[in-house]
Amino acid sequence: MASPAVDYARSNQSRFLEELKTLLRIPSVSTLEEHKGDVKKAAEYVAADLRRIGMEHVEIIPTKGHPLLYADWLHAPGKPTVLMYAHYDVQPPDPVDEWQTPPFEPTERNGNLYARGAVDDKGQLWMEVKALESLMRGHGGKLPINVKLIFEGEEEVGGESIAVYVRKDKSKLKADFALVCDTELFAPNLPTLCVGLRGLVYTEIEAVGAKTDLHSGMYGGAAPNPLFALIEIISKLKDTKGTILIPGFYKGVKAPSKDELKAWKRLPFNEEHYRKAEVGSKILTGEPGYSVLYRTWARPTLEVHGMPGGFVAPGAKTVIPARASAKVSMRLVPNQDPADILKRYTAFVKKLTPKGIETKIKVWSKGPACVVGTDNKYIKAATEALHDAFKKKTVFIRSGGSIPIVTDFQDVLRIPSVMMGFGLPDDNLHAPNEKFHIPNFYKGIETICLFFEKLA
Amino acid sequence: MASPAVDYARSNQSRFLEELKTLLRIPSVSTLEEHKGDVKKAAEYVAADLRRIGMEHVEIIPTKGHPLLYADWLHAPGKPTVLMYAHYDVQPPDPVDEWQTPPFEPTERNGNLYARGAVDDKGQLWMEVKALESLMRGHGGKLPINVKLIFEGEEEVGGESIAVYVRKDKSKLKADFALVCDTELFAPNLPTLCVGLRGLVYTEIEAVGAKTDLHSGMYGGAAPNPLFALIEIISKLKDTKGTILIPGFYKGVKAPSKDELKAWKRLPFNEEHYRKAEVGSKILTGEPGYSVLYRTWARPTLEVHGMPGGFVAPGAKTVIPARASAKVSMRLVPNQDPADILKRYTAFVKKLTPKGIETKIKVWSKGPACVVGTDNKYIKAATEALHDAFKKKTVFIRSGGSIPIVTDFQDVLRIPSVMMGFGLPDDNLHAPNEKFHIPNFYKGIETICLFFEKLA
Repeated sequence: MASPAVDYARSNQSRFLEELKTLLRIPSVSTLEEHKGDVKKAAEYVAADLRRIGMEHVEIIPTKGHPLLYADWLHAPGKPTVLMYAHYDVQPPDPVDEWQTPPFEPTERNGNLYARGAVDDKGQLWMEVKALESLMRGHGGKLPINVKLIFEGEEEVGGESIAVYVRKDKSKLKADFALVCDTELFAPNLPTLCVGLRGLVYTEIEAVGAKTDLHSGMYGGAAPNPLFALIEIISKLKDTKGTILIPGFYKGVKAPSKDELKAWKRLPFNEEHYRKAEVGSKILTGEPGYSVLYRTWARPTLEVHGMPGGFVAPGAKTVIPARASAKVSMRLVPNQDPADILKRYTAFVKKLTPKGIETKIKVWSKGPACVVGTDNKYIKAATEALHDAFKKKTVFIRSGGSIPIVTDFQDVLRIPSVMMGFGLPDDNLHAPNEKFHIPNFYKGIETICLFFEKLA
Repeated sequence: MASPAVDYARSNQSRFLEELKTLLRIPSVSTLEEHKGDVKKAAEYVAADLRRIGMEHVEIIPTKGHPLLYADWLHAPGKPTVLMYAHYDVQPPDPVDEWQTPPFEPTERNGNLYARGAVDDKGQLWMEVKALESLMRGHGGKLPINVKLIFEGEEEVGGESIAVYVRKDKSKLKADFALVCDTELFAPNLPTLCVGLRGLVYTEIEAVGAKTDLHSGMYGGAAPNPLFALIEIISKLKDTKGTILIPGFYKGVKAPSKDELKAWKRLPFNEEHYRKAEVGSKILTGEPGYSVLYRTWARPTLEVHGMPGGFVAPGAKTVIPARASAKVSMRLVPNQDPADILKRYTAFVKKLTPKGIETKIKVWSKGPACVVGTDNKYIKAATEALHDAFKKKTVFIRSGGSIPIVTDFQDVLRIPSVMMGFGLPDDNLHAPNEKFHIPNFYKGIETICLFFEKLA
């Protein structure tokens, strides 16, 4: 169990953390055009470090969107090849007012590092890079297995470029398995592997009524209101219990196995604590008859995220807007085909559109759900590495989020993904005050070192 | 019919127009805190001109909100006293992108003057000021009747300060009648007096779910979504035909008289032309069984104007917002009490609020509807002045908009208002590309001169 890589990692913790802070200061928000340069800057910062530690063929790959980053080290003949994945783009920081410290000024508080991207996913990306450094330095300039690495800058906006690249250059990325660090521990100090993800279809319904904005005094009672039309449409997409009303939406939905459902019941999950401490709402919502874990991991959902249009500044403006839109997404579960769901959704929205209003549907992203088998040697080695690092039995969970690249690795490259993440449930992903628990950053580095050493 | 005031006005048209442009360049948006100084600047510009033309006791009156402007000239013993009203604040210019020329750079095109506030209400305010100048200059430094003048800078945000002032200093504003220039001609070149206005209750429903924004992947299916809750609530406030479903909402609603409804049928109104040229929508909406004029002038309505909250920038953010709100207003008709309506509305919204969501209602403004009698000498003199200026029979209409001050003049000061406006139905009030037809600006000045001369 003695690992020279782990020894090296432990001796360099504070430097690793300072380097991560530098990466977090780059506001690489992939969905905002004005931060395009920052996403590239983040890629360049990571690339420079990969070169420094001895990775080869380090390459920033231009795309139609944000650049990809590739590197490899392939001098371990007869050993397996891993494809390491992470992303250096982040979600927008809005609402900025609700951050206790600025989102792009990483700040340590109570053993946590606060910043946009701290855990999703720059912190976990840096874990991978620092594990490679520790392995290189601990093993005399060599890695115990062959390593390929593909990092992207579009994960938060659908990851189109990496999807194209994976399809275009299958041999370049060919490996035995993938390591994806973009998930979380089920509970503090509980070693966890994620073996299932929900899919996503993210749309914007654009509605148009009159040719121009109108005064609601002069025209109220005669002019169509696209904002009200969207309200009418969306109110009919889902009932008050959370059941989605799109015809055929649940067709073919695959339920988890009895064994998996049983294992979930044994997880240390307290619904009341989750409601109070994590969600912070009066009650939990969702479909009756399903547990919270079932609802968030293995049931499809529909949410509205924002409704641009009309007057949204403080104050009163008596306007009937000419146009408005609604950002509506659906989370999908195994056996739901995103293209089929999108077709059914589009037809239903059209059917619900009131007379006098025109609607168009814009698709921001789409990807299917994915469940990964636990019956191969990479998952087993990961399980053991986690055990060695945490001294506890590993639990297998799913995540309600979406990592479309995991599906691509499986469907296009035909390799399984080991989803090994070190976030915590209260890390505020996609929300103000995102954080990474600093000991988990270090534990992640050590676990990856042990994992790769086990495969040598 | 020879009028020295009208002669003076005709000789000074281009200067009057240039002066109006200067006033329009001041972005006096009363609902936006950052334009507070501009509202005051607009008041000061008008005050300076009133002093110059010979008005007395010109006074900028500070309030809790935006300042009021008072002036008088009371040297016509035995003659009636008019209280002249207009407002120098404007609506926000959003969406700015849709303006052909900048909203605060007045531009002449095809005989129109384009700018925010061109017709609502700075252009009509300036009409009043220039009529006073023309009367003074045409009558050797004297006015034919006594004049008091109260202008405000909060009309677009509910007019609270003038409402307070009217109640506080009734004797100062006491007059025989009011002249309010903030309405429009029913059709180009058709002399029009407005004798009815709808009331308004403008609210914002604020909804709160979880304690913080949440990732829709992780929490979708368990966390309450306040944006979706607002959609559920608002979809139940009004049915698809436009009938408002708040219990007791229509209680006591007073219908127009048979004579009034008959006269409306004789107005030159082409529903198809209105739909195509003015609204520019595929169909007109609203309650079946009522004409368009009835629906927009004498039926109450409910509209949603904007839904702040969540992610509204271009792109995709998978957020379940912690809080969201909806700007919802109701137009009221005679015999609907705003306080009663607000009470019923609040109770109904609370009842419709789903479990797990808290809602609060913020009131941005409220004022009752108002119908003014046509059977007094001021209305008659105004009718004749319009006839002399336009050489056509005056029509009596209502407006779907709200001018709460007209109700205050009636209920507090006990004086009737002559609502004489020179806007056109396609002037884009509250919308991009607001305009004032320049010949109407001149005709308005002349009509006011003739009106006051008739009362001497």
